[in-house]
Amino acid sequence: MTIYRYKENPLITPIDVPPLHEGFEVIGAFNAGVAKYKNETILLLRVAERPVSKDSQVIKAPVYDCQTEKIVIHRFNRSDKTYDFEDPRMIRSKDKMDGFSFLTSLSYIRIARSQDGHTFTIDDQAFLYPSNRYQTYGVEDARCTQIGDDYYINFSSVSEMGVCDSLVVTKDFVTYQDKGNIFAPENKDVLLFPEKINGKYYALHRPSLKSIGNYDIWIASSPDIEAWGNHHHLLGVRPEKWDSGRIGGGLVPIKTAKGWLEIYHGATAEHRYCMGAVLLDIDDPTIVLARTETPIMEPEEDYEKKGFFGDVVFGCGGILEGDTLIMYYGVADTSMAGCEIKISDILAQLEAESNR
Amino acid sequence: MTIYRYKENPLITPIDVPPLHEGFEVIGAFNAGVAKYKNETILLLRVAERPVSKDSQVIKAPVYDCQTEKIVIHRFNRSDKTYDFEDPRMIRSKDKMDGFSFLTSLSYIRIARSQDGHTFTIDDQAFLYPSNRYQTYGVEDARCTQIGDDYYINFSSVSEMGVCDSLVVTKDFVTYQDKGNIFAPENKDVLLFPEKINGKYYALHRPSLKSIGNYDIWIASSPDIEAWGNHHHLLGVRPEKWDSGRIGGGLVPIKTAKGWLEIYHGATAEHRYCMGAVLLDIDDPTIVLARTETPIMEPEEDYEKKGFFGDVVFGCGGILEGDTLIMYYGVADTSMAGCEIKISDILAQLEAESNR
Repeated sequence: MTIYRYKENPLITPIDVPPLHEGFEVIGAFNAGVAKYKNETILLLRVAERPVSKDSQVIKAPVYDCQTEKIVIHRFNRSDKTYDFEDPRMIRSKDKMDGFSFLTSLSYIRIARSQDGHTFTIDDQAFLYPSNRYQTYGVEDARCTQIGDDYYINFSSVSEMGVCDSLVVTKDFVTYQDKGNIFAPENKDVLLFPEKINGKYYALHRPSLKSIGNYDIWIASSPDIEAWGNHHHLLGVRPEKWDSGRIGGGLVPIKTAKGWLEIYHGATAEHRYCMGAVLLDIDDPTIVLARTETPIMEPEEDYEKKGFFGDVVFGCGGILEGDTLIMYYGVADTSMAGCEIKISDILAQLEAESNR
Repeated sequence: MTIYRYKENPLITPIDVPPLHEGFEVIGAFNAGVAKYKNETILLLRVAERPVSKDSQVIKAPVYDCQTEKIVIHRFNRSDKTYDFEDPRMIRSKDKMDGFSFLTSLSYIRIARSQDGHTFTIDDQAFLYPSNRYQTYGVEDARCTQIGDDYYINFSSVSEMGVCDSLVVTKDFVTYQDKGNIFAPENKDVLLFPEKINGKYYALHRPSLKSIGNYDIWIASSPDIEAWGNHHHLLGVRPEKWDSGRIGGGLVPIKTAKGWLEIYHGATAEHRYCMGAVLLDIDDPTIVLARTETPIMEPEEDYEKKGFFGDVVFGCGGILEGDTLIMYYGVADTSMAGCEIKISDILAQLEAESNR
């Protein structure tokens, strides 16, 4: 697979983004949803801000308070035996190590704009900021699906009640209509298909399961893009492979002559995130036609391997120009990078590896 | 609260139900959905069958095979250190003790019919039997909502891929139309409201959350009763109370002059299951008007306290006759019992305890 990584990479880093909160630092500007709006490339950046802690023994957890509309900071001492602080992203209760009690940063969605797709300017304010009780721990990892003049933006809403997937619709990236939680918790990596198929909307989603089951990709359909049913298991993790630990939809599915092309992320149990591809039937996307055995993209560059949470390439969106996919992707849970990949190359890899 | 428990209780026990599978024993006939159809009271029994094991060291796990349409039996030795066998309902991997790897019985839905509501005859065959890859571990805990001539029956579909909620619709309790998985995993205790409210269907549901959140009741709405969105958190567990561990919808919501009356189950961390009540706004059931502080019903009788999994009363359905609710309820994950409760008594308790 030939991938042309932009020479300017990383395109946006935390130091490019001034924090919105006094006493906070931006530790991540990553995992952006992507749209083409008028002549601009729009990145719906996930900006993660963390309260500055001068004492390395003190871990802080910011939580949005719906009543006061302010952030409350919870403080923990690293010596507190009740909690585990090893994962820098979260504070975990020692009796619930597969979940989290608090996050160490609060994320929101902020727009970066570009004329040339390489140099971006960051909006002064947030586009999507926590605004209800499902978002007290932040909003994360937006994806953007254009249908006509409408841009559907869905994202994770995180709170102590769970992780939902929520939807807003905008026509101008200034105002939006709130459609609430479209997937019940616990669910992430929802990708809305860009058109109806046989009269129905479709979405990929990735439930996180408690009692039994893996971090697999499911597919659902909808009459109105807000209510979802007809849930089917689509794609599972694969033992021993690069996508053995968890998988989830990445970019909005791309319509090709061969079928719906989904570029998804997969990680090992050790949290090394790569991107792979799967081809779905054009008339019935619940049918998997082909899947790459090897990743189409792996963390290779220094900015992909090192950061707040290293060894991560995490694409959430792209722009198609003929056969060229301009993919913007989060790196190391820290920054944004860009690259170009030929759709025909991905389809060739899918065909070659499916015939092996 | 005055509860008139039927003198014939338990009404149906495992010995009343001949197993459908050779070499199996029925260990449970419980947690039935309830319907009034023509002159009959219909119980949609959850029948749990277990492969007989003559060797107490050997634990067997039955799994439905979609290809052969037969049950495959997996065998485990009690001395196997990889697994935990303490909970008689399941086989748990020791590195995932909050979930399960296999179930020790396979459940399906079988109809019991009665003219008088006290004595029941059991159908010879299953009404709902595993039929797809989401049901390889069985189907469990049906609820039945009548809307006009249609009876909507939803239930848990359990497989190694997760626990979904599925829906079928019948007009005659003989044939049915399959509507697939209406709630993505992991979800249980879905209760469909018996009429549209402001043009939309509503349902209670109870997601099981992995990373963060409790076993709480959520509410969703739907344009067509198959696709669900607009998810809201409705009711949480309450520390230190009888419903501190987990809660879930029980009976189909009952329309009263005071609002929608939901009789739900709550359990402690020690798995003692009681029934409580909550009152929801008649025009907007996402609004909680009142909730009982104490249970309306607790395990008291011997048949409620002792069994396959004791200390459980678990109502999944009832029949309303004027002010009298005839509630049928599972006891000790083993048998079915019946009782009568006055709706006015429940509403009085709700009012008294909410004003405290």
